Amino acid sequence: MTKSNALDLLAKKNEAFRALNMASSLIHWDAATTGVPEKSLEARGNAAGWLYGETFSRFVAPDTLEAIETLESFTNELNEKERAMVRKWGSDYRKFHAVPPEEVKAYNSLVAQAESVWEKARETNDFALIEPFYEKIFAYNRRLCDWYGYEGHPYDALLDDYEKGATVKMTDEFFALLREKITPLVKMIGASDKKPRELEGPFPLAKQRDLTKWLCGVTGYDVLRGKIGEVEHPFCTTITRNDVRITTKYHEDNILSSLYSVIHEAGHAIYEQNMSEELDAYDLGDGASMGMHESQSRMLENMIGRSHAFAEILLPELKASFDGFKDWDNEMLYRAINIARPSFIRIEADELTYCLHIIVRYELEKALISGEIKVKDLPGLWADKYEELLGVRPPSYAKGVLQDVHWGAGLVGYFPSYAIGNAYAAQYMHAMKKIVDVDSAVRAKNLAPVMGWLKENVHRHGQVHLPDELARRATGEGFNPAYYVDYLQKKFTALYQ
Amino acid sequence: MTKSNALDLLAKKNEAFRALNMASSLIHWDAATTGVPEKSLEARGNAAGWLYGETFSRFVAPDTLEAIETLESFTNELNEKERAMVRKWGSDYRKFHAVPPEEVKAYNSLVAQAESVWEKARETNDFALIEPFYEKIFAYNRRLCDWYGYEGHPYDALLDDYEKGATVKMTDEFFALLREKITPLVKMIGASDKKPRELEGPFPLAKQRDLTKWLCGVTGYDVLRGKIGEVEHPFCTTITRNDVRITTKYHEDNILSSLYSVIHEAGHAIYEQNMSEELDAYDLGDGASMGMHESQSRMLENMIGRSHAFAEILLPELKASFDGFKDWDNEMLYRAINIARPSFIRIEADELTYCLHIIVRYELEKALISGEIKVKDLPGLWADKYEELLGVRPPSYAKGVLQDVHWGAGLVGYFPSYAIGNAYAAQYMHAMKKIVDVDSAVRAKNLAPVMGWLKENVHRHGQVHLPDELARRATGEGFNPAYYVDYLQKKFTALYQ
Repeated sequence: MTKSNALDLLAKKNEAFRALNMASSLIHWDAATTGVPEKSLEARGNAAGWLYGETFSRFVAPDTLEAIETLESFTNELNEKERAMVRKWGSDYRKFHAVPPEEVKAYNSLVAQAESVWEKARETNDFALIEPFYEKIFAYNRRLCDWYGYEGHPYDALLDDYEKGATVKMTDEFFALLREKITPLVKMIGASDKKPRELEGPFPLAKQRDLTKWLCGVTGYDVLRGKIGEVEHPFCTTITRNDVRITTKYHEDNILSSLYSVIHEAGHAIYEQNMSEELDAYDLGDGASMGMHESQSRMLENMIGRSHAFAEILLPELKASFDGFKDWDNEMLYRAINIARPSFIRIEADELTYCLHIIVRYELEKALISGEIKVKDLPGLWADKYEELLGVRPPSYAKGVLQDVHWGAGLVGYFPSYAIGNAYAAQYMHAMKKIVDVDSAVRAKNLAPVMGWLKENVHRHGQVHLPDELARRATGEGFNPAYYVDYLQKKFTALYQ
Repeated sequence: MTKSNALDLLAKKNEAFRALNMASSLIHWDAATTGVPEKSLEARGNAAGWLYGETFSRFVAPDTLEAIETLESFTNELNEKERAMVRKWGSDYRKFHAVPPEEVKAYNSLVAQAESVWEKARETNDFALIEPFYEKIFAYNRRLCDWYGYEGHPYDALLDDYEKGATVKMTDEFFALLREKITPLVKMIGASDKKPRELEGPFPLAKQRDLTKWLCGVTGYDVLRGKIGEVEHPFCTTITRNDVRITTKYHEDNILSSLYSVIHEAGHAIYEQNMSEELDAYDLGDGASMGMHESQSRMLENMIGRSHAFAEILLPELKASFDGFKDWDNEMLYRAINIARPSFIRIEADELTYCLHIIVRYELEKALISGEIKVKDLPGLWADKYEELLGVRPPSYAKGVLQDVHWGAGLVGYFPSYAIGNAYAAQYMHAMKKIVDVDSAVRAKNLAPVMGWLKENVHRHGQVHLPDELARRATGEGFNPAYYVDYLQKKFTALYQ
């Protein structure tokens, strides 16, 4: 195979992936936004499975490896994007082929069962139900570490799967810093009697929809290259580079839920919209990592969307649309959108406490993989760690060890990405603020300067660089969680002291 | 290739077609119901094109022919569905390969241009603009007759493409009957001063949406195996056998537009929903022909939806939902939903005059294909024929020869299907009424007995039988337009004499 043949072959596979992904994304969008007739589930599942199988069989075919190996022998003649493509394909291909096919098959059927068992275990508060599944899932993931290979801790192999280049060493250091600086603050707030005022509804849905449009205008989410849907569980999905859709759910009694889901998903969507279109041809038109994607949504949601400047521009909108804000001032709103309090449920956690929920999961996963603890110890250890880190002890498994679907879905090593994303967000924000007056952009209700910096330094590059390298180019240094911890400490000390 | 290999091969191709069709249908549905971001057109087009190419290349591959020929040599050992599948694939495959590939390519680019030229010609009332395109399109379709082959008139080959087994002979006889019996009636109505009362709005959209749900309940369109969307140009689309969707467009000042578009599309949808699911595996899960599909939508829309019994059940609904019906009675509503008058535009034509519009097009197409007339003669001949058949002469090409997109889209031989569908509808209705008390079912607001008969005799068979054979099995005779002409004559004589 010549170099040119190899590039053509991968380009052709990429073209197929784009079309197949578009179809799969539309199937997902259609189901989530307009519902699926119950009796059509089987045929729909078969079609979706066929489309996935087409992607899969093109990827695992022997000619893929031949193309990769050909291009690896020409590395010096490849441009930056071609090299990144070969790195990505080579890594994914070898990882896939490192796992015995019969193991993959058995794991897939295990996980297919485990999800519904997890649901039942959660509903009936019966950990013993899911225990044998977790045993097998963690045992498989332990073997996965050996198949994938690792240099330091076996868990590195799992981390790397979601967050290229992430290690136990860097995560341990990050979380040690959080423990040291944030845990005492959270305990202080838990004991504090400062209670920010609650927003009072009703918030008519038509007005909330107008607010969504206003948010799109402010943030720079391009509605001409996307669409806004209403769903049960909000998400962002890329149909094509120029059709990136966000979704939200409106609650008449809660304005903040939809407001911050829109800002969050807009952060993801702007990242997707700002990627260079030419990356699609190299299969590099995606976030640099799961955490990097999350960094963009959380920066917009929390660091910008819960800033003093944002409270200032938001309040007049709320006053104009809803009755309950007549006697509110900026500071009251700022405090109301920054309520922090120790809680049980990760996905409902506030900006300050969120990462502590992640630490619990990370420490348990790591100890399970290294064999220091057993699955049967999880419920007790979970409760102990919540008490230690957040000062609360879950009253049930639904509010404790069984709250997340991840383990039942076979995802081990995924959680840390959320925390890493938060830290990258603060690191970018710190670097950006040297150049861009972020608060002024917010006050001008036009984040173009902010998004301009992010596009230039992060978004447009897609997966051309690994996360750490992308951060280094954008900020002058690799992953550094100090900015994040510092940001949290200052913000929440000021709010609650 | 063994018989079993051949069946497996076609089954595998069918599985791919189902998944690819589902994706293509969803792309269409998504675009029509929620709009497409303008800048995403190119990428969306590329993906849709790739999906189509996958279907196409699987179909035209040499192993398809090998499988067809293998199965043709085992015809006696095949079951009914397998034989129908082989007949369909064989015919489609040989037709496709009968046309020189360079001709197909040239025609596709010609047609791609012609559609926008047609739009411009219509807007500027300039027939000369589109004339050279029509010349080439009709010349190609004349050559197509030779490539496809025919026994009687060359136009038979084109007719057969949309309506398997239809011929000039049967269509001529059908249309002669219509000319003889209906034309005088239409002229009489054109001169009549009987003016049914017009419905007066406004008709609030929320109430119209409720009426749509009521219509679904009455007709038997299964909303649990489908979905209702709102679009610019209503259509019905099959995502899967258990997910057949209809669409409509609501106008605040016009209740009949949406009402009858819903009934029409429900007729198509019920046909699709009622096909045996096992037919999908043989690629036979579609209407027996374009006209047969139309027979189901028009029977429901016109023969049932514009009957005395339907007016009786509709009026209370209208009275309950809208203010303008206080002093209406059943007979007034029956007359209002059966307004007939000569007009220029086919797609706005009433039940009585509709087929006369088709006759104009059929006679012109047939004469162009046989070489009796030239494209340049179309505008004049069109106007003459409208005057002859409907007693009106179009004031512009937009209201005359340039009103339909079909010729510019390369579709020659398509129009007669609409008329043939109407005739099949009346033929089925006549046979069904021997067994089913249709009016009582309507008055009971539950068409289950009607749909039960249609499912048993028409719907469930999909494409297992050719149209004429399907009609023969259902009604005891092949295509017979006498019932349709008789129905029209009785109904509209009673209304207008």
